Formats: sequence, C-alpha cells, structure tokens
Amino acid sequence: MIVEARLAQFDSIALESGATLSPVEIAYETWGQLDTLRSNAILITHAFTGDAHAAGISHETGRPGWWDNMIGPGKAFDTDHYFVICSNVLGGCQGTTGPGSLNPATGLPYAMSFPVFTIRDMVLLQKKLVDSLGIECLLCVAGGSMGGMQALEWAVSYPEMVRCVIPIATTWRHSAQQIAFNEVGRQAIMADPDWCSGDYYDKKPPARGLSVARMVGHITYMSDESMREKFGRKLRDKEKFGFDFGVEFEVESYLRYRGTQFVSRFDANSYLYITKAEDYFDLANGTGQLTEAFRTVDTRFLVISFTSDWLYPSYQSQEIVRVLRRLNGDVAYCDLQSNYGHDAFLVDVAEQTEIVRGFLDSTARIARAA
Amino acid sequence: MIVEARLAQFDSIALESGATLSPVEIAYETWGQLDTLRSNAILITHAFTGDAHAAGISHETGRPGWWDNMIGPGKAFDTDHYFVICSNVLGGCQGTTGPGSLNPATGLPYAMSFPVFTIRDMVLLQKKLVDSLGIECLLCVAGGSMGGMQALEWAVSYPEMVRCVIPIATTWRHSAQQIAFNEVGRQAIMADPDWCSGDYYDKKPPARGLSVARMVGHITYMSDESMREKFGRKLRDKEKFGFDFGVEFEVESYLRYRGTQFVSRFDANSYLYITKAEDYFDLANGTGQLTEAFRTVDTRFLVISFTSDWLYPSYQSQEIVRVLRRLNGDVAYCDLQSNYGHDAFLVDVAEQTEIVRGFLDSTARIARAA
Repeated sequence: MIVEARLAQFDSIALESGATLSPVEIAYETWGQLDTLRSNAILITHAFTGDAHAAGISHETGRPGWWDNMIGPGKAFDTDHYFVICSNVLGGCQGTTGPGSLNPATGLPYAMSFPVFTIRDMVLLQKKLVDSLGIECLLCVAGGSMGGMQALEWAVSYPEMVRCVIPIATTWRHSAQQIAFNEVGRQAIMADPDWCSGDYYDKKPPARGLSVARMVGHITYMSDESMREKFGRKLRDKEKFGFDFGVEFEVESYLRYRGTQFVSRFDANSYLYITKAEDYFDLANGTGQLTEAFRTVDTRFLVISFTSDWLYPSYQSQEIVRVLRRLNGDVAYCDLQSNYGHDAFLVDVAEQTEIVRGFLDSTARIARAA
Repeated sequence: MIVEARLAQFDSIALESGATLSPVEIAYETWGQLDTLRSNAILITHAFTGDAHAAGISHETGRPGWWDNMIGPGKAFDTDHYFVICSNVLGGCQGTTGPGSLNPATGLPYAMSFPVFTIRDMVLLQKKLVDSLGIECLLCVAGGSMGGMQALEWAVSYPEMVRCVIPIATTWRHSAQQIAFNEVGRQAIMADPDWCSGDYYDKKPPARGLSVARMVGHITYMSDESMREKFGRKLRDKEKFGFDFGVEFEVESYLRYRGTQFVSRFDANSYLYITKAEDYFDLANGTGQLTEAFRTVDTRFLVISFTSDWLYPSYQSQEIVRVLRRLNGDVAYCDLQSNYGHDAFLVDVAEQTEIVRGFLDSTARIARAA
C-alpha cells in the first residue's frame, strides 16, 4: 500500500491567541475509499512528533507509517470499510505550515515569529481539511497521547461533526509533572547556542539540545519494567566497565542513538511550539469544571489507557470517564494491561485492535440506523 | 549549633579501577561527643548533591544542614547521645578531593583526568576517615538515596566495623531507568559548549547544561501528586497565558530557579563522575546474586522506602529485604506512606524519626549487652 502525501491550502486561519496565519497549508494522507454517502471517514490524529504518514509505505521515503499496525485492510481501522485520513498538525515540520515554513511577508522562515497556537487551533485546521474533502460528519476521530487531546477537542468543539472519538493514553489537561517534562525539553533546546533564538534555518540546527530533549522524552515513553526487560544493566560491548564516559550501558547507547536520529527528522522550533500547545491544553478552560465542557456533547467515547503508562497515567483517563458517566454519556473505557508504558498504544496493539474494531463497528451500525 | 568544616588528609587511596589518587583530602563535620569507649559514633552518608554539612548552622555560610531536621539534640540522630559524622564524598566539590581539585603533578585542576571511582571507593575513603578518628566500630551508617548505597556498601565491605545500617530510599543496583535519567543529565552537561571537555575551571562553567541536568533531577525527586499539590497548573503572574515562551506556569519558574541556583554550588564534572559511580553501583558485582554479597554480613538493617518514590521505588528496597530475610538476617523494613516522592526522606521525617530513634536505641542496647 504505497501512499502519497497531499497538501491542502487555505487562505488563512484565525488562532485562539488572536493572531491570524495566512496562508496555511496542511499535509495529509488518506487510505481506503470514501463511500457515496461520505459517512465512513475516520480522522487519525497524531502524537507530538508524529506526522501524516500513519500507514502504508511512503511514496517519498519508502517507510511504513507510525500506526501501520492499526490502519490497513483487516486491521483495527479497516481500510476495506473506512476512509482514513491523517494530517500533520499545525506548527509541525512534515508538510504543514510551521515555524520552519517561509513567511510570505518576509520571504524568510517564521522561526520564533510564528504565532503561538493551541490544540484547538490544530483541530480547527483539521476541520478546514475535512470540510474541503466534502465530509460533513466524521465517523470517528482517534489518536493517542497528543492525538488523544485532539480527539477530545473535536468532541467538544465540533460535536455535531463526529459520531465517536477514541482518545488513547491521554489527558484532558497537562499535570504539573507533564508540563515539567516538556519544559526541560524546551530549556535543553533553548540552552543550545546553535538555537540562536530560533534563527538557525540557514545554519546548523541546535542538534545537541534537541537530542537531549528527545532523550528525556524516550525515558518517559517507556516503563521502568520495559526498560529493565529491554536493557537491564547490559553493557554495550565490554565484559567490564570501561571506567570512562563513553557508552557503557546499552540503555545509554539506545538513548544517544534515538536522540541523534531524531535531529534529522524534527525541527527544534516545532518542538517548542507543539509542547507549549500540549501544556496550554485544558478542556475545562481553567475552570476545573470538565462537566461544563462535556455538557452538550453527545458523541460516543471509547477511552483507552495502559496500566504501565506513567507519563499519561490511567487516572487521567478515568477522570474523563467519570465526568462523562456523570452526564450519562455514551462512554466505554478500557485500562489495558501492558508493560510498555506510554509507548503501548503504538506497539502493544492486539487487545487495542479488537476493542477499536468492535467500537467502530457498533458506531457505524448506530449511524446507519439513525 | 554552629559547626565548622574540618579536613583530613591521606597520602593516597587505591581505587577500584586500579588507579591511585594521591594525596586525597576529605571534608567532614561532626556533632555531639564521642564517648570514652568510642562506641557511639554514627556516620551519615549524603545523597548525590549533598555535602558534609548535614546539620547545625554552618560557620562559613550561616546555612542549616541538609538533614538538620534529623540530626541534633532530641532528634532522630540524637546528638545528646551519639557522635555524628558526615563527610563530603570522594569526587565531590565541597571540600573533598574531586575533579575540581588541583592535581599536584600538574598544578592544574584534574578535570576529566580525575580517575573514575565507585561507591566502594567513596566508602573506602570514609573508612580511612573513621580509622583516623580512632573509631574501631561505628554504631550506625545511615543515608538516603546515594547515601543509602554507601550504607549498604559499608555493611558488605566492612561488616565488622558497623553494628547497623539504615539505607533509605535506595537500591542495591541502578535500574535501566535510573541509569537513563543520569545519562540524560550527563549528556546535557557534555552538550554545553562551555563544558570544553571538562576544562572550564579558568572560564565560565557549563551553566546551561548543568541547569538542564538539575531540572530533570528535580522532576524525579518529586511525585506526580506532590507536584500537583505544589504547582498544579497555576500561572506565574498572569491571569491568562502569555502565548509566549517566557515563564508561564509556576512549575516552570520553580524548575528554572532550581536549575540556576544549583550552578552556583555544584561542579559539572563532579556531576558526571558521581552519577557514573551511582550507575556502576551493583552490590552483587554483576552476578545478579545479592545473596552472595550478604552471606557473611551480620549487621542489623533498617530499610526504609516511601510509597510515592518512583525514582527509587519501594520494590528495590523490598528486594534487599527479601534477600536478608532469606539469610535469616536482622532486618526491619518500613514502607512509609508519603506523597513527597523521593524527597520524602529529606522533608517528611516525622514517622522516619520515630523509627530511626527506636532502631538506634535498640542497637545501642544490644551493643552494650555484647
């Protein structure tokens, strides 16, 4: 299944901050066929460093998508039945307008003059894309981590446009600890002299800072247990300690590799902006009253969390579920047993597949009956 | 209780790596009086960034010690009854010989030519200090975090020299996740161009890298819950988001402040060396058989962990306790309820105080009866 990236362009987008971005482009891919009633469309929303290439083999890079185990013929998001769309988020660096894009007013990259945006702004841009594809109502919006925040925001911002949402391993607002981890990443980038206040696009990027930020991220994506199983105290290529500061433990090697590799595919300024959007995210708009946010929502919910996920712990999903139940909402919840930590939604997908498949099937049946 | 730092010097120390350090100095403070039988001495071992100033008011800085709530007249380590010693670890930067000390062979700071050392080496230097004070047997060695590793190492290396040990919030070996957090800190420092391969002593230090390393540390010292209680999503000094990259959330402000403050009191190269010593630490010497390490030990143990400590989780203490029980060792264990995370051993000391006091009292009684 070879897929090609596509691009949609819109004249402008009015952001939550009050700023306007003009024009704005959004990169996306699609899989499967839109049915004649345009009723079988599913929007997949990606996590922090993801992109539009969620499934199939990329025409450009030859690489499989980041959720290829969940999207395709016969898979959880079955492309024999559904028309699946995934787009790169606003502010990203994989085709959608972001800090690395040229500002038409100056002919130079926006860099840190790019307007600050929110999860709601990301969703607004996705809505423009969905509108432009002639789809009046999505069957589903589904995503993990920051993708789950977008799914939740869809349910609250455009409840009439989405029949069900599947927020996975996510939260309705970032905790102090989640903000803290993001802040460390931002500080690592901004501490790198190569960051140059964001104006590095004609020079070398802040590779060291971005790499350190990514290393912190990777620790939080795994569980204590999965790290122990994968690395333990295994040494890289020595019988004994080198008593030096080279790579000694395998876990050090893994982190350094992941950090370095990340630099080649991600833009440091996008890192800053997107983590800010995550930290701002608060479905209750600072009131602490999630009930109000969900009061007019009649979308179906399937909320999924993972037992060993300590970055987006299960209690955060359970807060969402409790409020929806209190409102007599249509909500299913599964706390899936997994040792993979936050990464579970990407790698431990057997049970997740069965649950998502059944939920989509019943939602489609209800939609047909309506 | 004003205390003055003292200094002991030894001709040389032979390290586990095979290297020799010569001469070597160790900074220490003492509280209380050594009794005529020299039987009431307690050695306090400090955590990663601690120092010899554990209690009282420093003659030099006017500041209270880092465990002043635990050490003093009538406190857990009651200086009306015990003679308490605390020394700065080998490789530290608060008076004991470390990477920032002058190498007599060159007249320049050792920097990265300082030999790599281990927790066992730290303990060997402490033993030299204890010997020099004319103490043949310590009543107790006690410490939290890396201090707990030293307490454990004392029990294994010099079982005849210590009647009891109190390892708190610690482990018998670092897990992959613990190594990973340390490695991120090291990479943050070494990524800072001001680090200059460690040769920064006549220039400005790698403040940005060291500050980022410390920020990561502070996240791991607190629990998700204590961060939520202390900061939540509180904003620094605005009603609304600034939509910029300044300090917005209070947790950001706290981390930046802690990072910056740390730079003024800690040496980046010491950070590298001491975290390496932690990562190397493995009481079973890579065999995985902790039972062998403890087989000849007949020291009393009081092992303490805290329910919300996710950096040194309770299961790591329980592994130690299980092995000691299997060997029919004299071991007491308490998993204390606390929301303060790893910091609990420093800040949530009411219950810890009662338990330590009783344990020391019974150990002293047993020692007198023997």
